[in-house]
Amino acid sequence: MDVSYINPFVSATIVCYQTMMAVTIKPGEPSIKKYPYPAYDISGVIGLSGEAQGSISLSYPEAVAIQSVKLMVGDSTPIGDVELADAIGEIANIVAGYAKKELTKFKLSISLPNVIIGKNHILANQSGSPTIVVPFSSEIGAFAMEVSLKTR
Amino acid sequence: MDVSYINPFVSATIVCYQTMMAVTIKPGEPSIKKYPYPAYDISGVIGLSGEAQGSISLSYPEAVAIQSVKLMVGDSTPIGDVELADAIGEIANIVAGYAKKELTKFKLSISLPNVIIGKNHILANQSGSPTIVVPFSSEIGAFAMEVSLKTR
Repeated sequence: MDVSYINPFVSATIVCYQTMMAVTIKPGEPSIKKYPYPAYDISGVIGLSGEAQGSISLSYPEAVAIQSVKLMVGDSTPIGDVELADAIGEIANIVAGYAKKELTKFKLSISLPNVIIGKNHILANQSGSPTIVVPFSSEIGAFAMEVSLKTR
Repeated sequence: MDVSYINPFVSATIVCYQTMMAVTIKPGEPSIKKYPYPAYDISGVIGLSGEAQGSISLSYPEAVAIQSVKLMVGDSTPIGDVELADAIGEIANIVAGYAKKELTKFKLSISLPNVIIGKNHILANQSGSPTIVVPFSSEIGAFAMEVSLKTR
């Protein structure tokens, strides 16, 4: 299985956090997602289609999502569910957009972000389409990126 | 706002339930999704891109999702999270695929399904991109379809 397509998504997430939040995030070891799936509080998901099909998500514990958004939009703004969802969707959108530029061979087009808010939700894998999980650690806490891309 | 693109998704859902589960489902009045958003237990989400960008989701209370899947795959199969997610993803995929055929003007391509499992999760709207919610009622219970499509 060639999963080299994961690298542009990892780089894009690092660059996004560095430039937009001035936070250095450190990727851990990527792994193939297995049941039981990890649970998150907030996820931003972007669908990918073109010469390959799949999705990318950035998934957070609530506190880390809020901290990410505060650093992005300015600390003093009160953050309700609507603002939080918009900002997490925007982060996912930026990461997908950066990565897409590196993955020209797949001619990817990206959907609008879907943001899920719900304590301990899981994003279930589709059987037959492996999902790669990349954990990130940082001074504001840990979160995860998940990428599934079915290449032809 | 021209939201005529909703109709192919409504028809597709009705046809999917009629042909795959032999269940007649009845659409209620479509409405623009507003905060506070409705909460669901299981959602199947498909990203849409092409000449328009967005997503479609089918969102369920747990019991209705399980009943839908039992009718689809056969009543005797035990249903764990993995089977449930696969089947709900497949339903969303079929509905998106049917609707896409009617919406040729948007040259839509569809992403792989993302299935969210989590008691009382919400799918947050992106500001500036209205989401239309269509409730469905049936003998196996009620569920909802949500479609967001940003036309150019």
